[in-house]
Amino acid sequence: MPAKNGKQFVDRINLAKPSVWFRGEQIDGRLSDHSAFRGLMSTQAQLYDMQIHPDYKERMTYASPTTGDPVGLSFLQPKTKEDLKKRRQMMMLWGEKHHGLLGRSPDYMNTGLMAFYAAADLLGEKEPQFADNMRKYYEFCRENDISLSHAFIQPHASRYDELLEDGSIQSCAARIVEENEDGIIVDGAFLLATQGVTTDEILVYPPASAFIPEEDNPRTFAFAVPTNLPGIRWICRESLVAGDSVFDYPLSSRFEEMDTLVLFENVLVPWDRVFILGNDRLSIRLFSESGFHVHCAHQVLCRYIAKTEFTLGVILYMAETLDRSSLPATIDKVSEVIVHLETLKSLLLASEAGATLDRFGSMLPDRRPLWTANVIFPKVYPRMMEMIQILGSSGVIMIPSEHDFASRIKPDLDKYLRGSEVSATAKTALFRLAWDLSSSSFGGRQTLYERFFFGDTSVVTNRLYHSYSDLGAYIDKVKAFLGEKEE
Amino acid sequence: MPAKNGKQFVDRINLAKPSVWFRGEQIDGRLSDHSAFRGLMSTQAQLYDMQIHPDYKERMTYASPTTGDPVGLSFLQPKTKEDLKKRRQMMMLWGEKHHGLLGRSPDYMNTGLMAFYAAADLLGEKEPQFADNMRKYYEFCRENDISLSHAFIQPHASRYDELLEDGSIQSCAARIVEENEDGIIVDGAFLLATQGVTTDEILVYPPASAFIPEEDNPRTFAFAVPTNLPGIRWICRESLVAGDSVFDYPLSSRFEEMDTLVLFENVLVPWDRVFILGNDRLSIRLFSESGFHVHCAHQVLCRYIAKTEFTLGVILYMAETLDRSSLPATIDKVSEVIVHLETLKSLLLASEAGATLDRFGSMLPDRRPLWTANVIFPKVYPRMMEMIQILGSSGVIMIPSEHDFASRIKPDLDKYLRGSEVSATAKTALFRLAWDLSSSSFGGRQTLYERFFFGDTSVVTNRLYHSYSDLGAYIDKVKAFLGEKEE
Amino acid sequence: MPAKNGKQFVDRINLAKPSVWFRGEQIDGRLSDHSAFRGLMSTQAQLYDMQIHPDYKERMTYASPTTGDPVGLSFLQPKTKEDLKKRRQMMMLWGEKHHGLLGRSPDYMNTGLMAFYAAADLLGEKEPQFADNMRKYYEFCRENDISLSHAFIQPHASRYDELLEDGSIQSCAARIVEENEDGIIVDGAFLLATQGVTTDEILVYPPASAFIPEEDNPRTFAFAVPTNLPGIRWICRESLVAGDSVFDYPLSSRFEEMDTLVLFENVLVPWDRVFILGNDRLSIRLFSESGFHVHCAHQVLCRYIAKTEFTLGVILYMAETLDRSSLPATIDKVSEVIVHLETLKSLLLASEAGATLDRFGSMLPDRRPLWTANVIFPKVYPRMMEMIQILGSSGVIMIPSEHDFASRIKPDLDKYLRGSEVSATAKTALFRLAWDLSSSSFGGRQTLYERFFFGDTSVVTNRLYHSYSDLGAYIDKVKAFLGEKEE
Amino acid sequence: MPAKNGKQFVDRINLAKPSVWFRGEQIDGRLSDHSAFRGLMSTQAQLYDMQIHPDYKERMTYASPTTGDPVGLSFLQPKTKEDLKKRRQMMMLWGEKHHGLLGRSPDYMNTGLMAFYAAADLLGEKEPQFADNMRKYYEFCRENDISLSHAFIQPHASRYDELLEDGSIQSCAARIVEENEDGIIVDGAFLLATQGVTTDEILVYPPASAFIPEEDNPRTFAFAVPTNLPGIRWICRESLVAGDSVFDYPLSSRFEEMDTLVLFENVLVPWDRVFILGNDRLSIRLFSESGFHVHCAHQVLCRYIAKTEFTLGVILYMAETLDRSSLPATIDKVSEVIVHLETLKSLLLASEAGATLDRFGSMLPDRRPLWTANVIFPKVYPRMMEMIQILGSSGVIMIPSEHDFASRIKPDLDKYLRGSEVSATAKTALFRLAWDLSSSSFGGRQTLYERFFFGDTSVVTNRLYHSYSDLGAYIDKVKAFLGEKEE
Repeated sequence: MPAKNGKQFVDRINLAKPSVWFRGEQIDGRLSDHSAFRGLMSTQAQLYDMQIHPDYKERMTYASPTTGDPVGLSFLQPKTKEDLKKRRQMMMLWGEKHHGLLGRSPDYMNTGLMAFYAAADLLGEKEPQFADNMRKYYEFCRENDISLSHAFIQPHASRYDELLEDGSIQSCAARIVEENEDGIIVDGAFLLATQGVTTDEILVYPPASAFIPEEDNPRTFAFAVPTNLPGIRWICRESLVAGDSVFDYPLSSRFEEMDTLVLFENVLVPWDRVFILGNDRLSIRLFSESGFHVHCAHQVLCRYIAKTEFTLGVILYMAETLDRSSLPATIDKVSEVIVHLETLKSLLLASEAGATLDRFGSMLPDRRPLWTANVIFPKVYPRMMEMIQILGSSGVIMIPSEHDFASRIKPDLDKYLRGSEVSATAKTALFRLAWDLSSSSFGGRQTLYERFFFGDTSVVTNRLYHSYSDLGAYIDKVKAFLGEKEE
Repeated sequence: MPAKNGKQFVDRINLAKPSVWFRGEQIDGRLSDHSAFRGLMSTQAQLYDMQIHPDYKERMTYASPTTGDPVGLSFLQPKTKEDLKKRRQMMMLWGEKHHGLLGRSPDYMNTGLMAFYAAADLLGEKEPQFADNMRKYYEFCRENDISLSHAFIQPHASRYDELLEDGSIQSCAARIVEENEDGIIVDGAFLLATQGVTTDEILVYPPASAFIPEEDNPRTFAFAVPTNLPGIRWICRESLVAGDSVFDYPLSSRFEEMDTLVLFENVLVPWDRVFILGNDRLSIRLFSESGFHVHCAHQVLCRYIAKTEFTLGVILYMAETLDRSSLPATIDKVSEVIVHLETLKSLLLASEAGATLDRFGSMLPDRRPLWTANVIFPKVYPRMMEMIQILGSSGVIMIPSEHDFASRIKPDLDKYLRGSEVSATAKTALFRLAWDLSSSSFGGRQTLYERFFFGDTSVVTNRLYHSYSDLGAYIDKVKAFLGEKEE
Repeated sequence: MPAKNGKQFVDRINLAKPSVWFRGEQIDGRLSDHSAFRGLMSTQAQLYDMQIHPDYKERMTYASPTTGDPVGLSFLQPKTKEDLKKRRQMMMLWGEKHHGLLGRSPDYMNTGLMAFYAAADLLGEKEPQFADNMRKYYEFCRENDISLSHAFIQPHASRYDELLEDGSIQSCAARIVEENEDGIIVDGAFLLATQGVTTDEILVYPPASAFIPEEDNPRTFAFAVPTNLPGIRWICRESLVAGDSVFDYPLSSRFEEMDTLVLFENVLVPWDRVFILGNDRLSIRLFSESGFHVHCAHQVLCRYIAKTEFTLGVILYMAETLDRSSLPATIDKVSEVIVHLETLKSLLLASEAGATLDRFGSMLPDRRPLWTANVIFPKVYPRMMEMIQILGSSGVIMIPSEHDFASRIKPDLDKYLRGSEVSATAKTALFRLAWDLSSSSFGGRQTLYERFFFGDTSVVTNRLYHSYSDLGAYIDKVKAFLGEKEE
Repeated sequence: MPAKNGKQFVDRINLAKPSVWFRGEQIDGRLSDHSAFRGLMSTQAQLYDMQIHPDYKERMTYASPTTGDPVGLSFLQPKTKEDLKKRRQMMMLWGEKHHGLLGRSPDYMNTGLMAFYAAADLLGEKEPQFADNMRKYYEFCRENDISLSHAFIQPHASRYDELLEDGSIQSCAARIVEENEDGIIVDGAFLLATQGVTTDEILVYPPASAFIPEEDNPRTFAFAVPTNLPGIRWICRESLVAGDSVFDYPLSSRFEEMDTLVLFENVLVPWDRVFILGNDRLSIRLFSESGFHVHCAHQVLCRYIAKTEFTLGVILYMAETLDRSSLPATIDKVSEVIVHLETLKSLLLASEAGATLDRFGSMLPDRRPLWTANVIFPKVYPRMMEMIQILGSSGVIMIPSEHDFASRIKPDLDKYLRGSEVSATAKTALFRLAWDLSSSSFGGRQTLYERFFFGDTSVVTNRLYHSYSDLGAYIDKVKAFLGEKEE
């Protein structure tokens, strides 16, 4: 199956039947029927349907180098600036469809996998097989339009030692407990596999021990497996879907990406799915040299832009219904959003304009504008949500439901809740959206999520700082100005 | 019934049976059984129970001047600084019980009513009866421990004119449509009566027309009525109670104060409940001269302090379970909260230290420190919520439920979700609290609510600015410094 | 004289002998000998020398369409994106020479004049002569490398009416008092002609009355005149040159651009120098349609970037001498500057990438990224100065002078004031620079100047807001999302 | 000489003739004649004159316990809250005289010395003589109204090791090089003795080595000596006095407190002036237990308030002359200053209300509100300066001089530079003040100085954090709320 459609996506997920725990019970039926997943899966399906829709197909796929069939464009390894542009246009199409509300739109992980694939040589430096595994796995995913989640952070508790009954001390950190003919056996847990159970497979790669890199560290590995492999269990967090009504819960009914704790209890990972084994140095280099974060950040920046544009629309529409469009306080808020939007768009442009070929033949976007966006957006997004609250005031809260508008009290609502040239129903729909974006549990998770999307403040700041490899040149300018000899 | 207990509170509310609309249906049974109200009413009941509890009774009540029975201390008109201190201590007791999470703890409206009562002479300047009505109403409330809500803001739509079928143009602004022997007949709607249906009565006072004050304005009035008067309907907003489990929803299960749109459809308000009628000038003076906002702000500042202390505890406890207490980033956050706490406490102290007797014989706190607190807190509170998200990171979201801990997956949760010297259950309980405070729908409404509690930014700023009546003195200092003759 | 060199610049200024008042006295000798001007003029001369220097000449000039001689590239009307790039490269060369410290580097006004010239047709709509005047004046300036200042703001007092002795009431606003055969006679004053007396000519254009545009408003005009025309007097403000020593005052000794109040006392402006007369509507259109601000903002953004790079160097060098380069607090500061630098550079790139031909045939940069930069920088610059103070602490103040290092106490200074791998002299030179940039009177004026460079906050914010002409499109996205029919 | 007057102050300083180096030369004549000192000394003299002025004498002095003569009230050890109030009133009198612009108003060091004296027992724990030295020294200062500076920070270079010619390695950190019959011999340098040469004596106390406290550390000591002791040299920084004209330089001509680098070259400190010797532990305890910082912070907070009030006056007066008093943007700014002022005043009140007797019998203000003020003000002050720039715009820069108003161009200035109901002269005087406060070199140093007055951000933050000794109580509240057993 090349680029799939929505139905194919849903059917495959339903067929897999991974072991999913939700509020203390294992889910039995089809995920697409479950209240916590059906809205999201329907949204995902709509994204996949765009791949086969005549209006979009050409922009969303390319001809598979293997079969010539159309495959998803986010799998494309960019070799020219034109490729980058095509990728960006495709990612903007999906981004504008989900308005940046899906952190795990399929293009995100497709892009990450592509980056690993492009740098597969690196994996094979010691064990050619691992490079081969990665290439085959990438091809498998591309040709079958496999959707992926990923996991790499271990629970906080993995840092503590535990005294067992037999007197031994053990930590619960994930590790390889055995290697055998068939593969490696992995035991441990990983945090926050977003959309873990609404994808086909999961890519797992705990970060290497950066301080004392080892050659044979049982805690260092990278592999990919189907979600339903024996021994894997998925523990869902609180669901933030407030209801199925698109009117009442315009976002949580459609965009709630479940996060899961994923448990590996002595799971056998077949050899052909292993990409790194024990080698800390290689694990570190894979991330710093493959361009994984850079390519992903290119996708993320497209998403930031789509989300900022959507938020701008919400703010403008709210101001309009409140007759406040031309107030200085509104113009200030709108201008502030415009500043962010122009900045993000310019950074995206600059990342492509400054792209260069890396040693794997990939056209790698300039990382500096991308890291800049990753530093800016986690501050910008909460501020925009604050603006929505400040602009909407009690209107963001005093929101009746679809049921109210279908009841005897409708005439009163129509009379008292209408806005400036907008009906009470339309105004309520808008303000429910404002609420779901800025103030509901769904909105709260989105804000939290954006704060940490690409790492916490110190991670993204350091990444940017270290991307400036030539800081001495700025000092030299000052020395020259002061009449000192440049070094 | 003097100071009542929790059961009496609940029984009276259940008995009243006002017309409450929730999700398109009129509530039929007892409010205290309804999912949207039972948690809150139970919390309110606990507050009232303190009034008769031997540990608190003496600090929470005083002897009624009429009967000598113990009545609620928040009804006490303060005549000395000692009275202010007693009131503050009583308000802190309740505040520390609900941790500042109830905007409509009973002392809030009790205090407001007390301020109107103390200034009743003003109401009687033209119509002695109105002063008398107020005095009797206050006594009635105090002696029966009546709980009150209030409403004064009209829906945005009240500003628009509407073309009726008969060709006439009408606005839906609230107004007196008739006066007759029995009273006044009122028609219109008011926004956001918080806790409207979990109180006994509602005080209604739309602001006067400040621009062209009239003597006989049908839109200017003030009165109080029981919640169940014929013609009154209460439209509930979306309920933010996520469930009954105190473990899963530690806040929304107990502190969700429903906001309502309250509709008056030709409601007859008896004459003895009318306090202002048509007189814009009087309405304006009532608020500026009675000390209503000042006395209420004294209560509000107690609440701010209780809430800040609770938040400080949450932040400290989170840091402890994450082994991050001694990190500079944590010390920065904690110190920032301490700065706010010390500031709020000092402002409270200053408001009492600078209190003066007003012409009604009330010991009126200094309004300047109070208005300062009202300017500060709406910025401080969202910032503290932000700190919780930043400190807790994905832990604030990756929260299993009570059901999970009661199921087969408990051992895994115990293993992987424990914190530093704290069990997985205790840590989860804490992080669910952090979530409910900072990121859930309940938390979102709290943040929004605090932004606007005492008016929007420009209202609270102007109130503070105008409380500085002697700004010229500061200019004179500069003129003297510059050698100019002081004016 | 085509593109001139430094000596030619200085000689011409010295020859002009305008009427300049400084500390209550009219300056008599050569401006280039005067303490308030010699440093600046020497810096300006260095810029002009670059025009004839073999290393830069090709990048700084182009062949005059009239004579084929090399003329200054900032006079070039850009007709292609390649032209824009050439202009940018030339402006960066000058910007990197003066590190953004000159607000009135010659390219600024050259660019503004070019914009008026390109749009000269507009001036001629009613009076073809005015268009012709502008074209000839531009050619005169380009071919003679005339340096220009400009003035347009009237003193605050021009808004007040004054009662004269004869009983008449008059305002001191600038106006045309007479028109005669030779030209127009102008009376009034203009604020803050920066570098007014160190240029050859001044362009004057008070803004039109925007509210009631007239056809024959004596207060609306635009013209250009030499600085030494009879009746023109220049009143200097406090000079911020702290001394001639480049070691002690590395900035004020070289970059202090004097601001002047320029008085026109019945000055006869010849007809061939008049570009607008009385026509409010035209005056308004000139600014909105000529691209004056857009072209200038392109130059300003180059300057912003040069200044940010210089500041980055200062911060990095300070951290190095204090052994603090690798502290997290330093990395935070440096990263913050990098964020600003990447943002400004991306906005510059975007303004060129989005350039379009306007109806006058000019390749006009996209104004939206430019206005964004104009909103950002006035906040960024003071923040960077703050960082210098915070990083340098008392070192920014505890600065001995050149004299100290030439005296008997030198050994003590060498011992106690050295830094990490840097001598006391070099460290002192650096910290004197840090002081002069962030904390001296010169630095204070720079900070103030940047806050208002392109208008105050509300002006630059509104300019950006109105450049988004398609805000409705964002609302339509939200309507589509909510299922409403797009309008 | 008990409480001295201004003339006595000046005479004594002039008589001392310390070794002062200024711009590479040793000052020869009377300091009070020197351009860098005369303005400041005149201001100081005015403060001292208040001590004998009939209007202030009673509030500024108290009867010496030794002689009954009036001595300066800032020497008073507070034993009751009434004493604290007297001290505060006295400090406010001086503060309002210098508007908070003197960081080293005499009450600052008098207060610090008083704190050491009150805790003298501590100094005598091992060597009773040291306690006695302190008591006698305090009495000497109080009875002779000795003015003091202090020094404790060593130059950055003291951290580096230096290779000497003889192959030995040495750091330039200050240390005791010898002890003999007469006293201790000290060698080294200290940074930034503010007002070092315009006081009688200097108190020196480098901080102890906090990490490995020793009993006999040659780098740990505390002593006081006259400024003119042989071997002491004072190196002045750049003087920021811009001129003598009070009109042109209203602040720098009167309030420029010179900072000095003070060099000790084998200086013999007599035994009776030694307070600590070698004992790191004692040195640490002296600061943590004596209340030195607390008592000083009480003085500092008075100064903060005076400075904030002065700034408020400047902002209000500027707005008035610009006709902008009632604009929302102005009300916002003024309200922001009021928020700071109310906060600082409330914190001062709270520090006194919460004062408690310490074990030395001193009534010690509550440190928590004081540390809070020390965290707040360094952020507030630069922000207020920013407001002055934003409000005044180019008016803060376009400032003619006293000479201009005495010249032929006066009529033009009068016409064009007047404000709303204020003459050009008065407006210029005000805006020169605004400039000198916010933007001149003098203003730049004030801003820098306030940022670091009581330590950098991390020092003042940690001081506040550690003053909250009962943080566990806040955690317990949360545990109780969650139903956990309190610990």
